[in-house]
Amino acid sequence: MRAALSERSGRRRRSDVPEATVARLPVYLRALHVLADGGSSTVSSEALAAAAGVGSAKLRKDLSYLGSYGTRGVGYDVAELVLHVSAALGLGRRWPVVLVGVGNLGHALAGYGGFDERGFCVVGLFDVDPARVGERVGEQVVRHLDELDDVVHSARASIGVITTPASAAQDVCDRLVAAGITSVLNFAPALLQVPAGVDVRKVDLSNELQILSFHEHRKAARALTGVPA
Amino acid sequence: MRAALSERSGRRRRSDVPEATVARLPVYLRALHVLADGGSSTVSSEALAAAAGVGSAKLRKDLSYLGSYGTRGVGYDVAELVLHVSAALGLGRRWPVVLVGVGNLGHALAGYGGFDERGFCVVGLFDVDPARVGERVGEQVVRHLDELDDVVHSARASIGVITTPASAAQDVCDRLVAAGITSVLNFAPALLQVPAGVDVRKVDLSNELQILSFHEHRKAARALTGVPA
Repeated sequence: MRAALSERSGRRRRSDVPEATVARLPVYLRALHVLADGGSSTVSSEALAAAAGVGSAKLRKDLSYLGSYGTRGVGYDVAELVLHVSAALGLGRRWPVVLVGVGNLGHALAGYGGFDERGFCVVGLFDVDPARVGERVGEQVVRHLDELDDVVHSARASIGVITTPASAAQDVCDRLVAAGITSVLNFAPALLQVPAGVDVRKVDLSNELQILSFHEHRKAARALTGVPA
Repeated sequence: MRAALSERSGRRRRSDVPEATVARLPVYLRALHVLADGGSSTVSSEALAAAAGVGSAKLRKDLSYLGSYGTRGVGYDVAELVLHVSAALGLGRRWPVVLVGVGNLGHALAGYGGFDERGFCVVGLFDVDPARVGERVGEQVVRHLDELDDVVHSARASIGVITTPASAAQDVCDRLVAAGITSVLNFAPALLQVPAGVDVRKVDLSNELQILSFHEHRKAARALTGVPA
């Protein structure tokens, strides 16, 4: 329970923008990029909300936290809003990222083009398996976890990604935090305990499948009762 | 735009349980399993909400959609609620899943223990690269995409996972839908267009990093202004 509570307090500490709003900002940003690429200079809140898959009232509320209110009858200036949302997301700079656990998922993430183009630069790959240390992955060579502190300090990294087995995740998390990492993206199926001031985002890939099975289950039930889907 | 709208209409078609509630059910289920493993037979809405990292009013509302209201002064029966939430998520059965695109991420997902233990069984791995077709991955041998229809039909699979490059994703999605897949989990950085009745969940791994960079950005701003984090 303490682990879950720590994760939560890590998220709720900052007061000004609700976490659910923060989680939608990357979605708005992507929709805005699509609009900009398509030549739109302004967009109504309804159109932007539809493109992002949320209700327009929620979109307006979310953007109001950033101080973006749009203009009645005109909507939002696309280029201006891209800058606003990008600035809020801290995307004006490059974020050095370290990754621990270079199995299949670690390999996949190290080579994930989406990170680099969104401003995240993998500056260190770490493992403890002698068979993996020294392996070249993209532009990096896998290092032993004992080198973590040096790399975090010299690259001034503050974001760490954990792609280890569950059993190693808490220990790795502790080492990341001790090295100075203050934001952790956790792919291991384990709840992590972190001190105040450290943010953890947990990615559980099977959650997404469970959401789909919810819908499949409903579809099957509807098919049996003859209610159209 | 049309792709985004299709994805959205796919999500909003079913009316009874809000999508945001569905997305929280797997989180509640995991918290309940932790409570049950720890020997708890009942749990208050406040404690369950804290374990899941949501507000208790939201938790009660979410569970009310499933017809679970708890008992005043007692809370929820843990074992009963596990059954309720599992049933809503369609977890009473095993879901056959096919996966297309056996690169690093496909390998990682094919070997992801979390799927199997949550009731998702990978029944087919597909690629078009001759270097990958025939490769053994866990208990599966990678097949050519041309065999997709046969496998989907014989295994009665309704869930498909796309881990191809973005450029191939729409074509693969069309083939999955043509084969009879009605729920798609998309890891490719592409918005997919699907007919009504097909659900798409898009996983964008860099979204999570953007949420962390938001917080890092705030921490840095607070450090500069001397406001405690």
